[in-house]
Amino acid sequence: MKFEVTILGSSSATPVYNRNPTAQLLNCNEKFYLIDCGEGTQQQLIKYGFKASKIDFVFISHLHGDHYFGLIGLLSTLHLNGRVKPIKIFAPAALMEILVLQFKHSETIIRYPIEFVATTADNPSQIFENNDVIVETIILNHRIPCTGFRFTQKKRLRRLIVDKLEHERIPIEYYPMLKRGVDLTLPNGQVLKNIDYTLDSDEPKSYCYCSDTLFDERYFSSIQDCDTLYHEATFLHEMLDRACQTHHTTALQAAEVAKIVNAKKLLIGHFSSRYKTLQPILDEALTVFERTELAIEGVTYQV
Amino acid sequence: MKFEVTILGSSSATPVYNRNPTAQLLNCNEKFYLIDCGEGTQQQLIKYGFKASKIDFVFISHLHGDHYFGLIGLLSTLHLNGRVKPIKIFAPAALMEILVLQFKHSETIIRYPIEFVATTADNPSQIFENNDVIVETIILNHRIPCTGFRFTQKKRLRRLIVDKLEHERIPIEYYPMLKRGVDLTLPNGQVLKNIDYTLDSDEPKSYCYCSDTLFDERYFSSIQDCDTLYHEATFLHEMLDRACQTHHTTALQAAEVAKIVNAKKLLIGHFSSRYKTLQPILDEALTVFERTELAIEGVTYQV
Repeated sequence: MKFEVTILGSSSATPVYNRNPTAQLLNCNEKFYLIDCGEGTQQQLIKYGFKASKIDFVFISHLHGDHYFGLIGLLSTLHLNGRVKPIKIFAPAALMEILVLQFKHSETIIRYPIEFVATTADNPSQIFENNDVIVETIILNHRIPCTGFRFTQKKRLRRLIVDKLEHERIPIEYYPMLKRGVDLTLPNGQVLKNIDYTLDSDEPKSYCYCSDTLFDERYFSSIQDCDTLYHEATFLHEMLDRACQTHHTTALQAAEVAKIVNAKKLLIGHFSSRYKTLQPILDEALTVFERTELAIEGVTYQV
Repeated sequence: MKFEVTILGSSSATPVYNRNPTAQLLNCNEKFYLIDCGEGTQQQLIKYGFKASKIDFVFISHLHGDHYFGLIGLLSTLHLNGRVKPIKIFAPAALMEILVLQFKHSETIIRYPIEFVATTADNPSQIFENNDVIVETIILNHRIPCTGFRFTQKKRLRRLIVDKLEHERIPIEYYPMLKRGVDLTLPNGQVLKNIDYTLDSDEPKSYCYCSDTLFDERYFSSIQDCDTLYHEATFLHEMLDRACQTHHTTALQAAEVAKIVNAKKLLIGHFSSRYKTLQPILDEALTVFERTELAIEGVTYQV
């Protein structure tokens, strides 16, 4: 099952050096989850060959513009391109007020349903579940209410050893039970031990997205043991004062977070416009956490 | 005196084929006037090497998103980059309501003054004047209230024939009066005929911007005899029904407008996403009006 994230925007606050404001596209089993949506996200989707129409779920971490100014344009484009299927948006309540005001003044009556779910930044909670994934909020510490998101795959059914089943002419009617881990005793007394005919499915993985936040241990339990941790790393550690003042994290701190929560991999982004080249930011994080990568626009990372 | 316009966005409704939603940058005597501001305008400014900080005036034609969704991001970037000088925005009143709501929820207190002037789409009127230019609205016929803008240069002072003045040792104290077209009789009885020492300045030029509109003769008087007419040409004429239905113009109609109003040059843009290549649109307009050019992003056109 596919579980991968493509970076559409890696810049903090303002676009610069060909870096765009924050947006990511998570592909989980060919369903597409947009995480934050800075200005120009729809252009970035086109640039990297993704169809906006495939996005059914949008998660907005907070209402600083570099994380959502692209959403109204994306929604308008979906409307103009004839979308009819619903889209589900998880975001702070005021976003809907902003969208409604903009649609009102353009006299646009959106053709497809927007199912809006207001997030709150008080306690971490599960906000979404389908057959593939569970999504929980992560309560971050930023200047305005801000939630990250933890996407956890669901455990899949066991995998059939089809060659063996076919060779022994086991009727396919028994397959669904075997996939669920059931042992079967047939009318003739034959016992089909589940363990002989199936393999365990892959362990579910989890992706944690921490958009904008101070280093704050209160959210660490929400991201414990994740497979890929995306964490903002706006500044080098020499700018720690500035990071604290603006409620952001340094590359060193992001790496410390990854180490403390036992993440398998760390992806850092949300780079300040003061950094033309990113290697120093990566180098700094690598001193603390080896399995760190830069979030580069257009690159797809396996969770 | 520079009087030129750079196209930053040439697409209608949605970005596609590397074309972005509408935005133009008018340079009049090294002062910068932004006309409409679709999503991604700040990225386009960077791409084409313009400093957003130089823009002091913004004109928004109407509140369809492809003409203003980029403004909030641009204003936010100016704020983050430390702007203190005012910016003047001419737009339908509701735009300020939208901006205020967005700033409120990001808890942003903009550091520089936004001087907002509400435009109305009832009667054409002069909305701006400085030493270089006068701006008047053009009342267009679109689905929602929509104004175009006519930028008319002011007549400059007469140009001194400096070689002759210096050769005849005319004191420079007399120059300002000569530039104003005054004849001078000196104490010794010598007469300095203005016509002998100055040349007429260039004729003032005018740039008309017609963003989104039905072909409608009621606005023709507002754009009469302009030097460069930018006119939307969303569709080929075979799509006339669709053009009428959506309150847009065909390439053929745009060319007819240019001919009727005696424009010196026509620039067409706001191309529908159905057209991957634009040559047929240009060809159609050229059948009616020879001095037509396509509005191509990144290209600067002399008014």
